[in-house]
Amino acid sequence: MLEAVLLMIPLIVSLCYHEMNCVNAFSITIILAAAVGFAMSMLMKPRNKVIYAKEGFIIVTFAWIFLSILGCLPFIIAGEIPDFFDAFFETVSGLTTTGASILRDVEAMSRGLLFWRSFTHWLGGMGVLVLIMAILPSDSGRAIHIMRAEMAGPVVGKIVPKIKDTAKILYIIYFVLTLIEFVLLCIGQMPIFDSAVHALGTAGTGGFGIKADSIGSYSPFLQWVITLFMVLFGVNFNLFYLLLLRKFKPVFTNRELWFYLGMMLAAAGVITYSIYPIYNNFSDSLRHSCFQVASIVSTTGYSTVDFNLWPDLAKGVIFILMFLGGCAGSTAGGLKISRVIIMLKSIIRDIRHLLHPRSVETVKFEGKTLEPAVMNSVTTYFALYIVLIGTTFFILCFEPSFDLQSNLTASISCCNNVGPGFGLVGPMEGYGGYSWFSKFILTFAMLFGRLEIYPILLSLYPRTWTKK
Amino acid sequence: MLEAVLLMIPLIVSLCYHEMNCVNAFSITIILAAAVGFAMSMLMKPRNKVIYAKEGFIIVTFAWIFLSILGCLPFIIAGEIPDFFDAFFETVSGLTTTGASILRDVEAMSRGLLFWRSFTHWLGGMGVLVLIMAILPSDSGRAIHIMRAEMAGPVVGKIVPKIKDTAKILYIIYFVLTLIEFVLLCIGQMPIFDSAVHALGTAGTGGFGIKADSIGSYSPFLQWVITLFMVLFGVNFNLFYLLLLRKFKPVFTNRELWFYLGMMLAAAGVITYSIYPIYNNFSDSLRHSCFQVASIVSTTGYSTVDFNLWPDLAKGVIFILMFLGGCAGSTAGGLKISRVIIMLKSIIRDIRHLLHPRSVETVKFEGKTLEPAVMNSVTTYFALYIVLIGTTFFILCFEPSFDLQSNLTASISCCNNVGPGFGLVGPMEGYGGYSWFSKFILTFAMLFGRLEIYPILLSLYPRTWTKK
Repeated sequence: MLEAVLLMIPLIVSLCYHEMNCVNAFSITIILAAAVGFAMSMLMKPRNKVIYAKEGFIIVTFAWIFLSILGCLPFIIAGEIPDFFDAFFETVSGLTTTGASILRDVEAMSRGLLFWRSFTHWLGGMGVLVLIMAILPSDSGRAIHIMRAEMAGPVVGKIVPKIKDTAKILYIIYFVLTLIEFVLLCIGQMPIFDSAVHALGTAGTGGFGIKADSIGSYSPFLQWVITLFMVLFGVNFNLFYLLLLRKFKPVFTNRELWFYLGMMLAAAGVITYSIYPIYNNFSDSLRHSCFQVASIVSTTGYSTVDFNLWPDLAKGVIFILMFLGGCAGSTAGGLKISRVIIMLKSIIRDIRHLLHPRSVETVKFEGKTLEPAVMNSVTTYFALYIVLIGTTFFILCFEPSFDLQSNLTASISCCNNVGPGFGLVGPMEGYGGYSWFSKFILTFAMLFGRLEIYPILLSLYPRTWTKK
Repeated sequence: MLEAVLLMIPLIVSLCYHEMNCVNAFSITIILAAAVGFAMSMLMKPRNKVIYAKEGFIIVTFAWIFLSILGCLPFIIAGEIPDFFDAFFETVSGLTTTGASILRDVEAMSRGLLFWRSFTHWLGGMGVLVLIMAILPSDSGRAIHIMRAEMAGPVVGKIVPKIKDTAKILYIIYFVLTLIEFVLLCIGQMPIFDSAVHALGTAGTGGFGIKADSIGSYSPFLQWVITLFMVLFGVNFNLFYLLLLRKFKPVFTNRELWFYLGMMLAAAGVITYSIYPIYNNFSDSLRHSCFQVASIVSTTGYSTVDFNLWPDLAKGVIFILMFLGGCAGSTAGGLKISRVIIMLKSIIRDIRHLLHPRSVETVKFEGKTLEPAVMNSVTTYFALYIVLIGTTFFILCFEPSFDLQSNLTASISCCNNVGPGFGLVGPMEGYGGYSWFSKFILTFAMLFGRLEIYPILLSLYPRTWTKK
């Protein structure tokens, strides 16, 4: 039912541009969504409303799959993406903020659908269920389990005691930052529609563009604005809240933030050095390298140039960055910087343990003691994450017309919700060439990546459904 | 001093073939090694002979580096590999049983040096220090720490109470298996020198060949013999001992063995299907696919064909196999199957924990309870292992003339002690094109991989050298 309400926004956009096929498509979907929602709320009355971790995972998994199926209907009904698997891929790519597209000619799409595509980024970035928590009266203190399942990162905490207030604060910060970017893009003389679409795409760290060359044809000022906001939306939102409360110290001593910024600076430096001979101009090299680094690390996926054609050093750095992702508690995907730091700390702990087998050292992170259980769950998550990428890659290998590099980077890119890869799935190419089966697999890879594997895995695990 | 003795074997080979430059080179190295060894044993008298884990790691690290430096002298003195970094790379590649070569024309090498090259595989496969323990009277029960540091796998145990006897049994099994392979190869009409070299190379799961096309020009019978022995040398040696004791049950219920064999069968099946259109002949496709799968999984690195030219499905499977490696307690490199199984068990444990946060389940493996500490050290090791591959790859990216695929597979191949990769480091190519710096990095990647990272990392860790 929420989706029916949300779909009114692209409906209005379609009306503004007099796109009648879109208006019809959105209207039909809205009626259908409302009807299904109403019927389900009438017919299904749970006797037991208590939500534990398990229920949280299952609710989030099914909510995301239903939202995606409903969300792809406008594309199909309007006839602009007639194939179900294509439309489903595109919608999941939107909601999971991946930004991988099967469209061969994005500029031919109607504006209403382009807006909806980018709007899904915005919704999926912070989480659709978190939005429900923010706006609807919640009747259970257990909603934290839904939030934990939907929000990314190794540890999800409340920033204020009430979960509803936490969700509200996060969405307000999110909305205001998006608005500032929109205004800045308008000031930079980007057309209003383009500004809206790109602000939504940046905010959700999604990456759907509306031009064949992504952001390439916009002015350097606009590219720098988007670079800045890609960096910002990859930062833990709790830090913005702390800044609003004028608590500067915890922000400036935040290890994850420094690691995130330092890593991006280092990567941008290496790439600038690597691509300088191509552009023969320091400011262009710096701009393109900063843009692409911010885009990959924040898992947005916009591009100003075809980095597929860059030297192998630059491509190698981008390849490594694809694995890392932004900060926990941001809208970015990927492994998350805090997980990388915790993994490095686990390694150091184990080295120390080898040196002094009997000493017990506590490990600290962001001023708090890291529980061994958290550290172990992070390294196990990492193993699971590599298994996910490996499995996706293995299945894609059966695709006859795609090479190893394309398949490998497509898997990494989708599992991390980045968007573009190298080779045939490069930034100026698309996922349209894959078979329906591979698209379906990649669709689930994106969902696995966005929900951080466990929710879907748990929903597929037989024991979850047996009563104990 | 042991190396001086061991070098007499290739010296005899050189004498047999009247290769005077090799005879000189080996003689000089033997005198030098004996002199250095004698001087060190006279000058350095440790006051404290107690060996803990830390000392075990450091002894193994330095022993391996010294052995490699001494071992590369014959190549330099004979003038056949005049450059130090090349010779060092080749020797470390031999000792670590990687089999990556910088030689552009292996057939031009003298037989004495070819023999030495393959003999280093045999020595490094089971471990040089384990050999010392097997033949010299050990004065400390603490030698287990040296064995743990040198032998591969997550848990290294003694098969008989005495460490010296364990080392002896392992070496006897190793020697007998090598001998059987040698005899079988001779029966298959491989020349005696070739049989010896290939038996040594298979036993250590090394992979140095003596022909430009590796094993490609030998008969199908010989290729099948080598396939069989590559599989055998990737099996945990404890199982052979149990078979000798007629304890069949623990062998046939060994999870790691079944996983190892099952995975190879599955991979060989997929690759046979994938390459069938190339050879248009089932028996050829099956033979090549079984050979290459056994070669990659056991981390040997021989090849019968240039799998670089295979379809991307076959290459994708080989790429995934490169990460896994053989069984723990074998001469194979890589991550080891038992680690993969323990990681999968950790993932299942964490899923169950999410379902029932308060239940405590014990995890079993090979009939024993897996301690949580062991499981955590395995997942942390995996994180460290990926960091090692990533770091090696990043440094290689600075190499101007190598592409991403070559650099990535070179890193994976060297860190896992496999040997060949794809692209410019494919099975019919070599590592000769890399700069001295990249070769040096890859040399250390091989050492890191062979000693399973911690020993060298610990030797580089400042706290190791400070007194507590």
